[in-house]
Amino acid sequence: MNGAAPGGPTPEIRIAYPAWVAEVVDWDRRCASDEEKVRLAIRLARENVERGTGGPFGAAVFETATGRLVSVGTNSVVRLHNAVLHGEVVAFMMAQQRLGSFSLAAPGLPQHELVTSCDPCAMCLGATLWSGVKRVVCGAAREDATLLRFDEGPVFPESYAYLRDRGIAFVRGVCRAEAREVLELYRRGSGPIHNP
Amino acid sequence: MNGAAPGGPTPEIRIAYPAWVAEVVDWDRRCASDEEKVRLAIRLARENVERGTGGPFGAAVFETATGRLVSVGTNSVVRLHNAVLHGEVVAFMMAQQRLGSFSLAAPGLPQHELVTSCDPCAMCLGATLWSGVKRVVCGAAREDATLLRFDEGPVFPESYAYLRDRGIAFVRGVCRAEAREVLELYRRGSGPIHNP
Repeated sequence: MNGAAPGGPTPEIRIAYPAWVAEVVDWDRRCASDEEKVRLAIRLARENVERGTGGPFGAAVFETATGRLVSVGTNSVVRLHNAVLHGEVVAFMMAQQRLGSFSLAAPGLPQHELVTSCDPCAMCLGATLWSGVKRVVCGAAREDATLLRFDEGPVFPESYAYLRDRGIAFVRGVCRAEAREVLELYRRGSGPIHNP
Repeated sequence: MNGAAPGGPTPEIRIAYPAWVAEVVDWDRRCASDEEKVRLAIRLARENVERGTGGPFGAAVFETATGRLVSVGTNSVVRLHNAVLHGEVVAFMMAQQRLGSFSLAAPGLPQHELVTSCDPCAMCLGATLWSGVKRVVCGAAREDATLLRFDEGPVFPESYAYLRDRGIAFVRGVCRAEAREVLELYRRGSGPIHNP
């Protein structure tokens, strides 16, 4: 550290998928069911652990009506030295960049939804509200994560009610056992827990 | 939209400060008091509005003991088509990049604090927990923002208690009237409210 401007005169943050996403994700596939969508999020979480690119969390944004995949996200906190980059946040950022809009509910856009391998933490639940998605589908439960010593932050029943009141629907516990397995896989591997 | 991979085969998100930050921010200055720190956050919020680069919110990360400025952040949601980029989030990301660490509380680092022109929204409060800062200093209150029709999301007294229990101290209402003025300035200018 010295007296220079941080990171040089024009610090810039760059966020990209891990290289394996190009191998694993079929961008032309349409997902017909919630189970199929959550299984993609779980696959991303598992690959992230097995390939050593981050924590056991994956997410994706879909068009609700067509099942068309818009973006994916994997926990990238350690890889990119950035505590904000949970899987859901990466998926939102990539979807917004792809559509050139800060809101996935901008006029003219079809309805979008977030699919995630685990109930969102407090930060990601807040990001969900600002993202423009109107539906959220989750795999593992908050309780599964906290039992394995992942902190989910200040999320209360009132937090979900707040988002529901603003037109966001939640479907939770889809393929929960499969989703929990990835959390356990990570725990067995003693990976770094970046939300200690 | 077509069948190609989103944004090309290697989509990348780039996040940089607005150009005026280099003119406005003195990186060598040390801030001695909370008032001085909050006034920098308010200045950033005001410049962001007046220069048309975003919403009326500014933030900064400081070393607590020395008052040394580590990073700043301005609301960049509309500018960068990215709903996650509230002032606090940008300040955290820039600080973590500067220090090369996903946690501002990593071993060997001095204690860090977040200073923000307005109470953090639900997303930013969650991000605060994961950031590693141990102290948060706020200007305008949640009530000031919501009266002006900015949604702050699901934040409850229990949310603050949750963070306090994990060792994060809060000082709120510093230079509150000055901070509120920037929210009102933005409202009078009828700028886009991206958290409608």
